[in-house]
Amino acid sequence: MSIEGLPKSIVNHIIDTAEQFVSVIDREVKKVSLLRGKSVFNLFFENSTRTRTTFEIAATRLSADVLNLNINASSTSKGESLLDTINNLSAMHADLFVVRHASSGAPYLIAQYCAPHVHVINAGDGRHAHPTQGLLDVYTIRHYKKDFTNLRVAIVGDILHSRVARSDIHALTTLGVPEVRTVGPRTLAARRFRTDGRARAQSRRRPEGRRRDHQLRLQNEWMSGALLPSVQKYFKSWGLTPERLALAKPDAIVMHPGPMNRGVEIDSQVADGPQSVILNQVTFGIAVRMAVMGIGVGNHD
Amino acid sequence: MSIEGLPKSIVNHIIDTAEQFVSVIDREVKKVSLLRGKSVFNLFFENSTRTRTTFEIAATRLSADVLNLNINASSTSKGESLLDTINNLSAMHADLFVVRHASSGAPYLIAQYCAPHVHVINAGDGRHAHPTQGLLDVYTIRHYKKDFTNLRVAIVGDILHSRVARSDIHALTTLGVPEVRTVGPRTLAARRFRTDGRARAQSRRRPEGRRRDHQLRLQNEWMSGALLPSVQKYFKSWGLTPERLALAKPDAIVMHPGPMNRGVEIDSQVADGPQSVILNQVTFGIAVRMAVMGIGVGNHD
Amino acid sequence: MSIEGLPKSIVNHIIDTAEQFVSVIDREVKKVSLLRGKSVFNLFFENSTRTRTTFEIAATRLSADVLNLNINASSTSKGESLLDTINNLSAMHADLFVVRHASSGAPYLIAQYCAPHVHVINAGDGRHAHPTQGLLDVYTIRHYKKDFTNLRVAIVGDILHSRVARSDIHALTTLGVPEVRTVGPRTLAARRFRTDGRARAQSRRRPEGRRRDHQLRLQNEWMSGALLPSVQKYFKSWGLTPERLALAKPDAIVMHPGPMNRGVEIDSQVADGPQSVILNQVTFGIAVRMAVMGIGVGNHD
Repeated sequence: MSIEGLPKSIVNHIIDTAEQFVSVIDREVKKVSLLRGKSVFNLFFENSTRTRTTFEIAATRLSADVLNLNINASSTSKGESLLDTINNLSAMHADLFVVRHASSGAPYLIAQYCAPHVHVINAGDGRHAHPTQGLLDVYTIRHYKKDFTNLRVAIVGDILHSRVARSDIHALTTLGVPEVRTVGPRTLAARRFRTDGRARAQSRRRPEGRRRDHQLRLQNEWMSGALLPSVQKYFKSWGLTPERLALAKPDAIVMHPGPMNRGVEIDSQVADGPQSVILNQVTFGIAVRMAVMGIGVGNHD
Repeated sequence: MSIEGLPKSIVNHIIDTAEQFVSVIDREVKKVSLLRGKSVFNLFFENSTRTRTTFEIAATRLSADVLNLNINASSTSKGESLLDTINNLSAMHADLFVVRHASSGAPYLIAQYCAPHVHVINAGDGRHAHPTQGLLDVYTIRHYKKDFTNLRVAIVGDILHSRVARSDIHALTTLGVPEVRTVGPRTLAARRFRTDGRARAQSRRRPEGRRRDHQLRLQNEWMSGALLPSVQKYFKSWGLTPERLALAKPDAIVMHPGPMNRGVEIDSQVADGPQSVILNQVTFGIAVRMAVMGIGVGNHD
Repeated sequence: MSIEGLPKSIVNHIIDTAEQFVSVIDREVKKVSLLRGKSVFNLFFENSTRTRTTFEIAATRLSADVLNLNINASSTSKGESLLDTINNLSAMHADLFVVRHASSGAPYLIAQYCAPHVHVINAGDGRHAHPTQGLLDVYTIRHYKKDFTNLRVAIVGDILHSRVARSDIHALTTLGVPEVRTVGPRTLAARRFRTDGRARAQSRRRPEGRRRDHQLRLQNEWMSGALLPSVQKYFKSWGLTPERLALAKPDAIVMHPGPMNRGVEIDSQVADGPQSVILNQVTFGIAVRMAVMGIGVGNHD
């Protein structure tokens, strides 16, 4: 549902499990039978081919049967209520719903009302949370940095509308990152995130202000046009260029949840440069989704 | 193709087979290998996510490979005839076509022209028939009532346009239900169904006329607006309310083929009440479709 | 990518491998485990249900996991570049991309930029090539004619815009067909194809000019309206009628890549007649695509 409130031990358990699945993905036969005979329903009320694809691949590699449902197109047109649709799908003996919804909280509602045998994974709800993205981001960070307790992380972009940023901040602070900064235009970057007391997230108005004091940057996908003067102005002020990256520590890694707007949020030299781990995030994302599904539904513990 | 003309022994054989599959669905690994290596093509000329989903799940649980084809979008746009499309799909060594079509009789045409190795299941054709829905309805009734010979069944709604009603009437009378009544507005409820002489279906103009004389009600989905004064008026006259249900026998069960229009055909108190078996219908529907597919294509007899 | 430049030995190897898979398709369980655990991504930038379906069936019968991606709908709407999309999909540990694109050369671009572990199959690019169609056509010809060195092949229709014609010409000349003629309206049939010196393709303005001197005809799907006076006129001049077929050798076979426009390119008497092998092409097409995938990705050699 959300990384908020998840104890550190569970976050670590998910990451440890994902690590085992990374080795599965590298095998000749990229499958385990953990979810054989289980039915995974991708309920995407909001279209996202990218995220749906990663869940579909993850489920398939666990040997589950996957059903993709474009909910908007189907039941609502016949006047059926959301909960009736959910109840019907539960009655088909679904084991897992992967829910993406434009409204914050929708997956909670579904989890609350659906049959007890059905597990629900939040694949992004409104501006609220995108927990598997947050988990894959901390997986990626642990892979490259090992220890969270000496990191400074900067999240650049439209923090205000970003469920990814929100989930990242919860995951990072849970794992003990001492400093998470949010950087972006005053209109888009929420000023201070105080989570569990250990972390204090600050918004800076100019990325130049940051000096070699962060390890990572996460670009955010969600630009709400009305609040931005222009794309060119955004890039000029907040785009991650080689010059700006040079202000970070030399071993800082660059992350992005995708899809990237090259020349807006990030310069191609950075996106394709040696510090970029953007494509590795995608690979780790499959393993993390396998872990979340396997822990939720499978016999894996 | 249709339940009409199907001997009682075959209807019972399908129900008995479905009963075995209900236990499969409850297992940890919800799969049998009956259709392994078989290709099931969902040919939906008319969109119906719900029905397609149940067939896809049923086929997957039999270990078949399922291919979903939105026929409208594909071949007709290139000027190809329906029969050429069917012949092409047959030539891909399909084993089973699940056909949904807005025109009555289309699945017959397809069955007549396609290669002899391909089985065809009618998943709803025009106003004609929806045999697997009829079969799952009698499965549900047998599950709760055991014996058909002492039942009175009322079918409420737009009987005139309902393939579900038609298939139900055939299934119920074949299994020996002595009385099937159709209830609805004069413009929508065909007056008398005479099937095999054992059953006489009557339309009543007011549901209040019915008094404790029926066991089941089936609401129908298909409201053709032009023939109805208004949705409010329909609910007032024909909607299944707790008051009306109180006129039936206390152990009467309430069924609905879905999707439900709450507040139009049925009151939420009834839909979610103790006499409702609507969600169980959905569960049994998977097993019934597994049985129909398995008997048609598999080695199961 | 293309049959052009492919050595004869490889073309023959593909055909030999496909022959083994034809027997798999005839089995009770139509599956081999060659691609178990492999991920096949159907990347269709141009819609083609028919071709996508054949690749999906072929991959499924090799036990691969198949993911269908309608690329237009997904990533481009979020402003992501084609290469970023491809890189992302590669990072999900895809094994094989099946690419259909309206632009000639797009599959080359993708193959050049995607990760080295990903194989790419061209499923039709612009007017350039449709190699698996070319391969299934020569498979079909070998099945019926055994020897290529004494054949005369006529390709009728819009040669100018046809990737199928182009791939056929390369395949046929590679396998030693001494004469490939292209027949069609002056505006649509390229006059001379000179490939490896062994073959000389000529366009004739009137099919009547051909006299018992060809074995096969391939009708082409791609009619670009602007260059044609009218559909009726086309049929009158170039449509394959029984009378015209009578001018060919009596054992000539008639092929068509589908979908057929009956009464435009071909008369129904010919399409459904004893010399037509059009539906067998479809069946062989599955086996040929299994062979291409298996040789590319599998352990089969």
